[in-house]
Amino acid sequence: MAISFRDRDIISITDFSREEILHLCEAGKRMYELEKSGGRDSLRHALRYRSLASLFYEPSTRTRTSFNTGMRELGGRYDGFSGTEGTSVMKNETVRDTVAMMCANHFDVLVMRHPLDGTLQWAADCSGVPVINGGDGKNEHPTQAMLDVLTLYVLNQGKLDGLRVGFGGDLSHGRTVRSLSLALAHFEGVTIRWAAEDFLGMPEELSGLLAERGVRVERDPTVRDVMRQVDFYYMTRPQLERMPGVTQKDILAMMEQYRIDLGKVSGFDAKVLHPLPVNSEIAEIDYRVYFTPAQAFFRQAEFGIFLRKALLHEMLRHDGYVVYDGALPAELAVGNNRLPRPLGEAKRRSMFIDRITRGAVIDHLAEGSLRAVNAVLDLEHRGHSCTTAVIAEKRNPFLKTDLAEFTERDLKQVSLLSPEPTVNYIAGGRLREKFVYLLCRNENCVTRAVAEDVPPRFWNDRGAIRCRYCRRPYTVTSRKVEPTDLAAYIASLPTAIEPAR
Amino acid sequence: MAISFRDRDIISITDFSREEILHLCEAGKRMYELEKSGGRDSLRHALRYRSLASLFYEPSTRTRTSFNTGMRELGGRYDGFSGTEGTSVMKNETVRDTVAMMCANHFDVLVMRHPLDGTLQWAADCSGVPVINGGDGKNEHPTQAMLDVLTLYVLNQGKLDGLRVGFGGDLSHGRTVRSLSLALAHFEGVTIRWAAEDFLGMPEELSGLLAERGVRVERDPTVRDVMRQVDFYYMTRPQLERMPGVTQKDILAMMEQYRIDLGKVSGFDAKVLHPLPVNSEIAEIDYRVYFTPAQAFFRQAEFGIFLRKALLHEMLRHDGYVVYDGALPAELAVGNNRLPRPLGEAKRRSMFIDRITRGAVIDHLAEGSLRAVNAVLDLEHRGHSCTTAVIAEKRNPFLKTDLAEFTERDLKQVSLLSPEPTVNYIAGGRLREKFVYLLCRNENCVTRAVAEDVPPRFWNDRGAIRCRYCRRPYTVTSRKVEPTDLAAYIASLPTAIEPAR
Amino acid sequence: MAISFRDRDIISITDFSREEILHLCEAGKRMYELEKSGGRDSLRHALRYRSLASLFYEPSTRTRTSFNTGMRELGGRYDGFSGTEGTSVMKNETVRDTVAMMCANHFDVLVMRHPLDGTLQWAADCSGVPVINGGDGKNEHPTQAMLDVLTLYVLNQGKLDGLRVGFGGDLSHGRTVRSLSLALAHFEGVTIRWAAEDFLGMPEELSGLLAERGVRVERDPTVRDVMRQVDFYYMTRPQLERMPGVTQKDILAMMEQYRIDLGKVSGFDAKVLHPLPVNSEIAEIDYRVYFTPAQAFFRQAEFGIFLRKALLHEMLRHDGYVVYDGALPAELAVGNNRLPRPLGEAKRRSMFIDRITRGAVIDHLAEGSLRAVNAVLDLEHRGHSCTTAVIAEKRNPFLKTDLAEFTERDLKQVSLLSPEPTVNYIAGGRLREKFVYLLCRNENCVTRAVAEDVPPRFWNDRGAIRCRYCRRPYTVTSRKVEPTDLAAYIASLPTAIEPAR
Repeated sequence: MAISFRDRDIISITDFSREEILHLCEAGKRMYELEKSGGRDSLRHALRYRSLASLFYEPSTRTRTSFNTGMRELGGRYDGFSGTEGTSVMKNETVRDTVAMMCANHFDVLVMRHPLDGTLQWAADCSGVPVINGGDGKNEHPTQAMLDVLTLYVLNQGKLDGLRVGFGGDLSHGRTVRSLSLALAHFEGVTIRWAAEDFLGMPEELSGLLAERGVRVERDPTVRDVMRQVDFYYMTRPQLERMPGVTQKDILAMMEQYRIDLGKVSGFDAKVLHPLPVNSEIAEIDYRVYFTPAQAFFRQAEFGIFLRKALLHEMLRHDGYVVYDGALPAELAVGNNRLPRPLGEAKRRSMFIDRITRGAVIDHLAEGSLRAVNAVLDLEHRGHSCTTAVIAEKRNPFLKTDLAEFTERDLKQVSLLSPEPTVNYIAGGRLREKFVYLLCRNENCVTRAVAEDVPPRFWNDRGAIRCRYCRRPYTVTSRKVEPTDLAAYIASLPTAIEPAR
Repeated sequence: MAISFRDRDIISITDFSREEILHLCEAGKRMYELEKSGGRDSLRHALRYRSLASLFYEPSTRTRTSFNTGMRELGGRYDGFSGTEGTSVMKNETVRDTVAMMCANHFDVLVMRHPLDGTLQWAADCSGVPVINGGDGKNEHPTQAMLDVLTLYVLNQGKLDGLRVGFGGDLSHGRTVRSLSLALAHFEGVTIRWAAEDFLGMPEELSGLLAERGVRVERDPTVRDVMRQVDFYYMTRPQLERMPGVTQKDILAMMEQYRIDLGKVSGFDAKVLHPLPVNSEIAEIDYRVYFTPAQAFFRQAEFGIFLRKALLHEMLRHDGYVVYDGALPAELAVGNNRLPRPLGEAKRRSMFIDRITRGAVIDHLAEGSLRAVNAVLDLEHRGHSCTTAVIAEKRNPFLKTDLAEFTERDLKQVSLLSPEPTVNYIAGGRLREKFVYLLCRNENCVTRAVAEDVPPRFWNDRGAIRCRYCRRPYTVTSRKVEPTDLAAYIASLPTAIEPAR
Repeated sequence: MAISFRDRDIISITDFSREEILHLCEAGKRMYELEKSGGRDSLRHALRYRSLASLFYEPSTRTRTSFNTGMRELGGRYDGFSGTEGTSVMKNETVRDTVAMMCANHFDVLVMRHPLDGTLQWAADCSGVPVINGGDGKNEHPTQAMLDVLTLYVLNQGKLDGLRVGFGGDLSHGRTVRSLSLALAHFEGVTIRWAAEDFLGMPEELSGLLAERGVRVERDPTVRDVMRQVDFYYMTRPQLERMPGVTQKDILAMMEQYRIDLGKVSGFDAKVLHPLPVNSEIAEIDYRVYFTPAQAFFRQAEFGIFLRKALLHEMLRHDGYVVYDGALPAELAVGNNRLPRPLGEAKRRSMFIDRITRGAVIDHLAEGSLRAVNAVLDLEHRGHSCTTAVIAEKRNPFLKTDLAEFTERDLKQVSLLSPEPTVNYIAGGRLREKFVYLLCRNENCVTRAVAEDVPPRFWNDRGAIRCRYCRRPYTVTSRKVEPTDLAAYIASLPTAIEPAR
């Protein structure tokens, strides 16, 4: 099948096949060759009527500028917001509305960075034009991973099979090492070596995954041991902000051993890469190395231009544009996160002490959560009854109200305080509906940001439940869910993250 | 007369005639039809050498981006500043100087947002190129009103006569409802319906004005009552920041009744509009409505592009450009806010206890204001005498100095503390000049921002005094002004807000 | 020799010869004449594929916008960062890395403003494309000085010889007066007059320098005395932030005498210039003057466009572009700030009490600095020995360690606490190297910003040592440096600031 990136959202590097990676590498290499042979300006008409919007809810000069450069060299235009401006201007507007606003502004592609995991899938769901993930929380930054691959591809003479790469700095807290190594796992005979303190080392789960996919992963005692046996050494920034209890002084002392300095690179041919920026306080690469042939990270930075220029060209070079229709895909109006429980005949009759004819009951609340649940629902202020009780033998408290139906925000707020509540809706004196409300447990997932109103959706990843947005696995823990009900629920989920339109 | 927007400042929607509104609606509709038929790029050369400057002293991504999109699709360029940057960079520079700087930069049109009412008229006075009001304080945002009208025009099949519109949310604190309803008052048989709490309802003054102009205004008991009888429902954001003592929790409880949710729109054909952004915390429109055919506010957002693209095209499509001359219109050098009082012969002799031969006296100061007036004038620090006294039978204190003439800043600062002071200038032992200093009473008016140095000007609006800048009516209250003096003053004022050049 | 600005860094106005100044004046005048005769758009293709990056670490709308306008009117593009965004985004990245990133983005020219003196020379050293100084600390802002010269040139009918210019406001704290007057010193028969309080007056050192170069400098008693005898009056902003102990109230009272108001300009033909912005709180030019023919500062602002447009045109109008190679000039890898001291035979034997066979000794530390030096080196935490001692008869303390070599950061940090330390490296039981470490004493010099890793370099300016970066003179004060050693060191330095590539 012909590979095409037309109108395609770029959410995660893991969505790319080996063939697609090679296709982009070749396209990026052509941009590189064009530039180096004096042809920088030869594509100035390719996207001359197209435009890119940057939606950077966190500051980024590097990523934003390189997308802009890509557009500029293809003759396109760009606009948008970034950093402090973004966070203050947009703080009371949902991502959905901001995306719609940008689509209404006839941008042909959106690049977004957002602090919450999974926001980019939601942005893509809401957008009529393709969306590129410029970093969603700790999750993904696929064009960074692709530019790293492109750099290796070109500097290694167009070959990724048999590559020998070292990793250094912080293999544990960043997404860079994970994304790049998973991308390389598509290729044959790849070796990854690393030397780092335990708490900065490669996570076992990742090592395992790579091994499964045929990558040889080796830990070496020292950086020089790694350097001796690789062609490229990929250094990363220790992510201090994600290491509680570790001071900058500790890191600086530790860096004596791990900093890439003249003593570590001399005598070897390995090229040093780095996603940049190097932290100037920590100086994980000593400035003296900058002036040696080992320094390849500035070339790597330029490969970011070639990759993005190539990607934008692939995505937008066709004629015509997307006509905005102002609508959202109706299938996303509601989530698929309500796990139905059977309406037992007996229970329907004797429910909840004093039978009610119309209203709702939330059952199986977490111990001690009642007061907080009460406060967020604020039912009496909203003009509804609210009775709460703890039945001794059952242990877990419940809440009863004459409100006919909770809003999605109500249920999310309850779930944040008491995961997997059972919700019962009663009408005409009978139990009409009973379900367990599932909410992704990743604390940084966009579906948990109540005011964003993202209807939670899961998918069935070969039998396992995963969040459509942040893609983390989800395990049902409620003791009230029977295995058959769980199996039926999983079977009802889609088996892939299909585009919303 | 042929309608033209060439070189015209866009300050207030109330400056537009019915014919001009229809002209812009037709121009906007052509842009809409062009876009929907694949012709987005057909005007890419229209303004290819023209450029727009954004001067946003308050953050705005929405308005700024849509003007940029308009320029981009006409082939023009844009630059400028916005938000936090604007407020910090520009905080010690007058609007006048910033406008001059932007004119010196050869921009062909300026779009400005500023927190003070009336700033845009002043910007237009200082600018040699046309200025578009992107929001001046609580005052005006004419392109928002025009895009609302355009949306109604197109979605209502090119007809504004006979329109039935509902208003919701906050009819009391925002400018949107006022501007749009006054624009609709140009058309025949318009009906406006609304349902809201008293304190968020339509102000009686506005209802009266609309009724005078032939608009039928009806209050209904519930939102559904409105929805049943209108074609469009215009929802707005409750402006919490303008409701002292009302908490977000109160608004949320109240919203149970007024929020646009599925229950309010189901069964009706009314299209829901909103100027956006929807406040994501309050959610005055429930997210479920977004996925229904009632949702028309994202289409409305796109009409913002069509309107601005059409307006910029009308304003700038001619050949040639304005040659900057670096000068300011000399007729704006001084205000017209000094109401002359007669120089009574007797008074000229026996003035102010101990006669002085040269100097100034400020009379009729407000009780208790002397100490503060003294502090702001700081006369002794500036090397001048300063005597203050209270004459018992007259009650009001006065201030006497050997300074020959006060600066405009002096008089503004005195007026802020003690409105309508009488100023007397004495030379050669005789009273040479006597006037009451008038300063607009709108606390947010740009003429009251002392460091902005805007010379206060008023105009005679069919016998009533109005501020040239914020356009609020002004009533002289000084008991010392005789009716004949007042009449002579009013007669001396211009009878319209003529452009400064 | 033909004058060319192709690929030239614009760092300081003092780098320009009389011929170069006249060349730029002529080029700027052509842009002025083109604009005034309707030809603004005639160069829209000159730089249509070129782009400019703004790197503004401090807010600037004025300078940034005028460079953008220059590019826009030449058909070029622009991007970059500014103000708060710059400072927050870039705070942990070195200037070197940011410059490399911008070069990797294929910008053809970089304009930078930075709070540290000398940063622009360093940026030029790191950049493969030309760099324009948009203001480095208190140091230089050459395009401001050139636009001032261009304004005088055009408004004075193409003549700079015989010019009579007054200076006012603050001649002491700003760079404007210094830069402009030094540029004018290239011309014949120039007279400079001024009237100001002593503490705001022209520094004697500058007066002397100007007198040497043939400029007549006269102090007059009052502003009117100046105004009477000049053709142009250049007013500047009192730089309150650089006057400790002086309040705004003091300045305001003083301004009664020095503010340019109607009383100061009436009766004279002098044109008032000002680099802008005028401080709106202080109002060093009264607003009434804005409306008179004396006001020439808005025309001056437009000359900023003409100058920058002409300069960019001169720099970039050639065919082709700089191909980025990702490398830094190897000759900048190390500084030239180590003043060698002879390895005396006797001393080599009996060094530092208990002889060590391998390690380093820092000698001649400042009294009382040992504790702080110890803390910043943190040797024991880094796994090295550290002995400190004070030998009575010698007075100055020293520090001894088994660390073989200090890093540049170590030596800078020591120098910040104890200037001109003597460093001794011992290997094989013998003194291998001994030098005094010199670090620029300008507290705002970029070479003192440890995390920026700028290798300190000096040059030999006709026998005097000057910092390559901030260009301040440097005097060796260590009593341990013998005159012959000093002379040999100075002789080893380059005799000019040669470009790094």
